[in-house]
Amino acid sequence: MATARPAPDRSLVDAPAVDKLDGLLLRRLAARMDPARLRYALGRSTVDPPQGSPVATLRFRDRRAVLGLVLDPEEHFGDAYAEGRIEIEGDLVAALEAAFCALSDAPANPLAWLYTRVPNSLRRARANVHHHYDLGNDFYALWLDEQLLYTCAYFESPDQSLEDAQVAKMDHVCRKIGLRPGESVVEAGCGWGALALHMARRYGARVRAFNVSREQVAWARARARREGLDDRVEFVEDDYRAIRGRFDAFVSVGMLEHVGRRSFRELGGVIARSLDPSRGRGLLHFIGRDRPRPLNAWIRRNIFPGAYPPALAEVDRDVLGPKRLVVVDVENLRPHYALTLRHWRERYERAAAEARVGRDERFRRAWRLYLAGSEAAFLTGSLQLFQVVFAPCGASGAPWTRRGLYEDGPGLAWNAPTS
Amino acid sequence: MATARPAPDRSLVDAPAVDKLDGLLLRRLAARMDPARLRYALGRSTVDPPQGSPVATLRFRDRRAVLGLVLDPEEHFGDAYAEGRIEIEGDLVAALEAAFCALSDAPANPLAWLYTRVPNSLRRARANVHHHYDLGNDFYALWLDEQLLYTCAYFESPDQSLEDAQVAKMDHVCRKIGLRPGESVVEAGCGWGALALHMARRYGARVRAFNVSREQVAWARARARREGLDDRVEFVEDDYRAIRGRFDAFVSVGMLEHVGRRSFRELGGVIARSLDPSRGRGLLHFIGRDRPRPLNAWIRRNIFPGAYPPALAEVDRDVLGPKRLVVVDVENLRPHYALTLRHWRERYERAAAEARVGRDERFRRAWRLYLAGSEAAFLTGSLQLFQVVFAPCGASGAPWTRRGLYEDGPGLAWNAPTS
Repeated sequence: MATARPAPDRSLVDAPAVDKLDGLLLRRLAARMDPARLRYALGRSTVDPPQGSPVATLRFRDRRAVLGLVLDPEEHFGDAYAEGRIEIEGDLVAALEAAFCALSDAPANPLAWLYTRVPNSLRRARANVHHHYDLGNDFYALWLDEQLLYTCAYFESPDQSLEDAQVAKMDHVCRKIGLRPGESVVEAGCGWGALALHMARRYGARVRAFNVSREQVAWARARARREGLDDRVEFVEDDYRAIRGRFDAFVSVGMLEHVGRRSFRELGGVIARSLDPSRGRGLLHFIGRDRPRPLNAWIRRNIFPGAYPPALAEVDRDVLGPKRLVVVDVENLRPHYALTLRHWRERYERAAAEARVGRDERFRRAWRLYLAGSEAAFLTGSLQLFQVVFAPCGASGAPWTRRGLYEDGPGLAWNAPTS
Repeated sequence: MATARPAPDRSLVDAPAVDKLDGLLLRRLAARMDPARLRYALGRSTVDPPQGSPVATLRFRDRRAVLGLVLDPEEHFGDAYAEGRIEIEGDLVAALEAAFCALSDAPANPLAWLYTRVPNSLRRARANVHHHYDLGNDFYALWLDEQLLYTCAYFESPDQSLEDAQVAKMDHVCRKIGLRPGESVVEAGCGWGALALHMARRYGARVRAFNVSREQVAWARARARREGLDDRVEFVEDDYRAIRGRFDAFVSVGMLEHVGRRSFRELGGVIARSLDPSRGRGLLHFIGRDRPRPLNAWIRRNIFPGAYPPALAEVDRDVLGPKRLVVVDVENLRPHYALTLRHWRERYERAAAEARVGRDERFRRAWRLYLAGSEAAFLTGSLQLFQVVFAPCGASGAPWTRRGLYEDGPGLAWNAPTS
């Protein structure tokens, strides 16, 4: 009797071959990511970094996720993580820091510049803003401070609360430009209006604040009415290009990085024509880079379409220089943004753990990655935070020294009477 | 008897024609210089500015001087003034301010870029320095402060003495980079050595200071020996390109503007390789511009051959960015340089009045013009003075805030232990 040949047990026969392939892929990835101190795991295979002991483990659910990272880590990591095809065992921020350090010296994707060449037309500008900021006020209220400031805070010391550090940031801005009662300010990109209201309430300024996000402007207007500040603060639902008139000060906190570099000259023109040529001064607060580079592709696609954090050189050359606006003061607040993001992430994770972050798991993981990745980017220096104070060339109103910024009183004395 | 016909009295016959020509030339000049509020005078002709009342009068000795100014004021004013073919009646600085304001918006000489394209080879660099700085220590001692600091002072208040303000400047620099006892510093372009000695004496630093001017280095070495600091300060008679080794800090005060922009990348390379990648930080103090422009042709030819004061954008793009050195802090001290120059000019004029400035009248007038013109350039914003603090990208030693710079104590806390 011919006995039936048993079907081969593939799990036994092919297992070594499969493990070998997985190991090969992981070693390729480890070489690509060197000197990132990360362990890589897929199935039964594990590969340690070529040098040093690992700070965390990247565990892959499938081979495709490994392959994507070998080909283009910047492009593929985000989706794979959001979809749960990569898990990070250990500290998420530390793992991302290690990855960023390794990738920062690698040649950038040669096609990446393509993404950044599209000028932000007005329609696109609105679409970009709506993509990110119209997720709903409730979502941001879960993890921002109570006044909804979605920009880098200024921590007078690292143990200050986020609430206080956001107020300190607003004061730092107002004191740098030395706002005085009755002065006029235009704000480009005002978010939920906290700074505009602060300038009116604490400094007695008259403020016109621009924002293309309908939901944020509605929120800001309601707050202005509630606080009885709507006679001194006007919220305009429009783009910065619609700014008209002359002001004592121009302020923009966290907008420049969304403008797109093809619009830098136009923005400089708007600023210059808005400022009183003898008394005027301005402040730009923005996420920047150490040198011109495109933003991480995944962040640009998933979180901030159209965003481009510029090098200081680009801001001076393209925004300020052509209109003879001169830098008076630059402060790099990079560590403050890392700390701000840590606060946001802790609040976000608390909300997620309490099931208050609705939507699907992919969304929750994408936002976790965005917050942790941004923190890692500021820690490693892949991103910077610049506050740039400037004035029309030849205007003589700049404060004599910066000492007044660090003393009691209303801040720097712009346009002080000369002796 | 035929009487001899008297020779025509040309002064009577041609005078109206001559006056008419002079008036025509002056009106042409007034139009060229508009809106400078200057009166122009040649012979018996006088022309007022098209708008406003004049702040001073330019009196020309000959027609050639007027013609030169009509053709190219930047190019011809200096020589004509030095040679006494132009006199200024009224305040010299105010007259030059008016002229700079008018010319700053005019298109630059289209050939001017030619002058700035020549890279400063080592030999040329030495020649350029010798041209200016080897005029003799005695000459500079006539009008600089007692320590011979030939760079912008930092006046804690406008009524501070020049002597004190130069010491305050050295402290400002040392406190910005937070020098601590035992730390090592390399200084590029050390002049007569005052800052190098100050860093060793007051901050306990070990300093290696470079300068290509033989006379200055000899002076500095003698002073170091006299003060018993020659074990902690080494003066090297060489170019910044000869810097070797690793240091906690890199400092350069008043050299960058003489380096020439074709050498910016090389300078950045020298700085980056000199700095400890985790603890290192640096400071560049230099004369700059609001936007890229060649230096005034006369100054470049007569006072500072090879000089090029850069825009901040050029320093970030060409010196710092390529080596991933990141701006931490920028301070614009423009009004401080105008005041420094006023002090220098007052001392210079006192020395000249007491016949202590030797040499010929042309030299004396050229230096008077250079000092007054530089003061006017800083007053009008044609020149800026930037102090830029930077660190290797990703280094985490920057101070948490700038508050410590304005409080008692040793200045900013770089590389403070993290909590």
